[in-house]
Amino acid sequence: MSLKMSIPPPHGGKLVDRVVRDADKARSLIAGCTSYDIQPTHDKDMPIRNVYREIMSTCYGFLSPVEGSMGRNELERVLKERRLESGWVFPFPMLFDVSEEDKSRLKVKGGDRLLLKLKGQPFATLDINEVYSIDPKDVATRTFGTPETVPGVVKHAFDPKHPGYNIYLHLNPVVFAGKYTIINEPTFRAPFDRFWLPPAKSREEFARRKWRTVIAHQTRNVPHLGHEMLMKNAAYMGDTEPANGILVNAIVGAKRIGDYPDEAILEAHEAVHTANYVKPDRHVVSFVLWDMRYGNPLESLLHGIVRQNLGCTHHMWGRDHAAVGDYYDSYATQTLWTKGIPGFGFDAPPCEVDKGLVLRPQNMGEFWYCPKCGEIAYNANCGHMDVVQRFSGSFIRSLLAEGLAPPPVIMRPEVYRVVVKWWRELGYPFNNKHYLSAREQELEVTVPRMEAAPAIAAGGHR
Amino acid sequence: MSLKMSIPPPHGGKLVDRVVRDADKARSLIAGCTSYDIQPTHDKDMPIRNVYREIMSTCYGFLSPVEGSMGRNELERVLKERRLESGWVFPFPMLFDVSEEDKSRLKVKGGDRLLLKLKGQPFATLDINEVYSIDPKDVATRTFGTPETVPGVVKHAFDPKHPGYNIYLHLNPVVFAGKYTIINEPTFRAPFDRFWLPPAKSREEFARRKWRTVIAHQTRNVPHLGHEMLMKNAAYMGDTEPANGILVNAIVGAKRIGDYPDEAILEAHEAVHTANYVKPDRHVVSFVLWDMRYGNPLESLLHGIVRQNLGCTHHMWGRDHAAVGDYYDSYATQTLWTKGIPGFGFDAPPCEVDKGLVLRPQNMGEFWYCPKCGEIAYNANCGHMDVVQRFSGSFIRSLLAEGLAPPPVIMRPEVYRVVVKWWRELGYPFNNKHYLSAREQELEVTVPRMEAAPAIAAGGHR
Repeated sequence: MSLKMSIPPPHGGKLVDRVVRDADKARSLIAGCTSYDIQPTHDKDMPIRNVYREIMSTCYGFLSPVEGSMGRNELERVLKERRLESGWVFPFPMLFDVSEEDKSRLKVKGGDRLLLKLKGQPFATLDINEVYSIDPKDVATRTFGTPETVPGVVKHAFDPKHPGYNIYLHLNPVVFAGKYTIINEPTFRAPFDRFWLPPAKSREEFARRKWRTVIAHQTRNVPHLGHEMLMKNAAYMGDTEPANGILVNAIVGAKRIGDYPDEAILEAHEAVHTANYVKPDRHVVSFVLWDMRYGNPLESLLHGIVRQNLGCTHHMWGRDHAAVGDYYDSYATQTLWTKGIPGFGFDAPPCEVDKGLVLRPQNMGEFWYCPKCGEIAYNANCGHMDVVQRFSGSFIRSLLAEGLAPPPVIMRPEVYRVVVKWWRELGYPFNNKHYLSAREQELEVTVPRMEAAPAIAAGGHR
Repeated sequence: MSLKMSIPPPHGGKLVDRVVRDADKARSLIAGCTSYDIQPTHDKDMPIRNVYREIMSTCYGFLSPVEGSMGRNELERVLKERRLESGWVFPFPMLFDVSEEDKSRLKVKGGDRLLLKLKGQPFATLDINEVYSIDPKDVATRTFGTPETVPGVVKHAFDPKHPGYNIYLHLNPVVFAGKYTIINEPTFRAPFDRFWLPPAKSREEFARRKWRTVIAHQTRNVPHLGHEMLMKNAAYMGDTEPANGILVNAIVGAKRIGDYPDEAILEAHEAVHTANYVKPDRHVVSFVLWDMRYGNPLESLLHGIVRQNLGCTHHMWGRDHAAVGDYYDSYATQTLWTKGIPGFGFDAPPCEVDKGLVLRPQNMGEFWYCPKCGEIAYNANCGHMDVVQRFSGSFIRSLLAEGLAPPPVIMRPEVYRVVVKWWRELGYPFNNKHYLSAREQELEVTVPRMEAAPAIAAGGHR
């Protein structure tokens, strides 16, 4: 048996591609449809989710084999077993939710096609096959689990302070289930356009580079040296040699105040290879549109699915993966990928179960700066606990906020320059309310003007 | 299928243990045997081999499943296919060779037991089952291969300047084939005693440490930071997480002038963990007795067998593994472990063939110091070719010879102190003729006095 790996098949076996690129066909598909304007979901006056990102990620295959908004049975199965009706592993409910008012006003039912408009233009369709009601609080609670249902992993009950829980809590009570189809491809604005590499393109790029093994690095941060070292060192995992390639895949979507702007995150990671800390031929930076659920082990499962669909063979997992607060145990993600979490339906890791992932985990410890080692050292190696200095995101942010360049042993100067560039551009170094609100208006995309609007139009409010 | 690995079985399925620990049994085994004094093989006046090391490594199971000196058929199969008669992969002829004079004088034949004495004491027996003649030059040539038989890998014909070729060229023309048995266990002198961890003990130690994955690091050097980083970074290969342990396994035996003394090599590697650059609980230093054949891909196969027998799951391979000169292509070892070398009987890597190894390769590139990265950087990452500084063993040796401490970015101060310690002890920093000759007299062991010498005694000369 050869030890050599190759780029894995997509999750579910086949990449979902639900994008109609023929304008005539698109026009015929939407002729006569009722339309609905996609708007962001808000909590008080802060945007927390925009379903357009889920539609994009679904139709371009990031979430394969998911093809749309889930029906009631599938929702139940996901909540109970983290599996789709087809049996394939999937962590989160994916729902197109509308208010009771919109339901009454739209008067659509199973068998109808709904036209979804974005920024005033036709964008996608939803072929409704089921309309049903949910209890958002119940969905939210069961999505993330409780200390009773997932003992040892969920440390205390979720509440609206958790931004992911809050997303589900803000679901509208009516779900339109059915497949999405993009009928008018949005165009990414700069700098997102440079990093738009959906699964089919990503796989083409890996093939062009002749990569057999690619390890994914999840990011929602401007990289400090601890991130860079995690990335470079985790990448010594491969098959018979270190990974051929590293994919940095950023989560782009609704974020929190105080996070770095997505534009800076993408360009800062790009600076790591343009400045040759990792050679450009070994390093690709791209993104997925997703409003983070901060679901730690569940989020890692989603990230795993996305990155396998992008063509990765491995995924590095650290402590507190995609976590906020201490709702989950710090090592919940590594527990999932080494032993499984029965409370979430996994008696074995998701890469070792039927209809699970092929992607392999690289579970990593911690990196710190050690003046004695003279390097960014790994916790399994360095025993100089009296002198080591841990990376602190808040310390780096406080330096930046004071206009101070972090020392090069903390942040590469080329990375810092990207932060400053976007600070100048936006007027602030970190996301504030203004950025987040403006961002949800502008989005990452423009939607081309599409002639021949459908006959029946009706507004939508979320 | 679980991705988690465990300590592999020994090569051939079972650890060879041919050590008689019961003195009465030992005495009865050697009663009445003809005896033969083991002496080192010399080239001119330099020792190049001592068959006692092969007997030790065989009887303690390092070379499992090899149990003794090979018969004619097995020798042929090893030279043709690199397989033992049992079919298990093995790279080198292992022969107990004597002169025509000794053959005539000893008058032993198949079925006889020969007592082998070391430093004047009974040490081991050889149960002869075949006596045959060889052409040493033919064995030497076929052992290493020629540009015709192993095209693309052997770059030019071997000659007596190659120390491994020279070992085979100096074989005596008569072979006594049969199994070895140690009947009087030698005792290692300091500091070797501290690092003596033969396969059964090594496996016990790994089990005590609860290691599932262990990556082997081959050494015949005092470690500079390039070695340390190779060791630490290759060890991010494991199964679902970095390797639990790193085994540094030094080759102890006949060496070349200018090499570091074995005592310094062992203690210098130990300093890496006593000084906490790798935590002691992740790092074991041990050795195998072996007169290096410098056989690059073939040597890597032997090292692989030894390290799998010691309990390792992975082995790191660099460029020019165990090589001298440019007889072999620089990447010959990595070629063997990624594709196989048909001229040596491997159409696939030795870890992917029937009766091959279980040990997995981690084929590594190069490390250098990069002032721009501010670290010992890996060639697949660092693109600052205009400023990088490569490690040079001869540069470090020249600093040491001048009494200069290498900068800490080249060699750890604790490692340098070990070099100085042995320099003071021996009177020279590197092996010279005096060291090598004295070493072969003294050996790494003392052999306990054993009463009741056998009835018939006859001298041996090599």
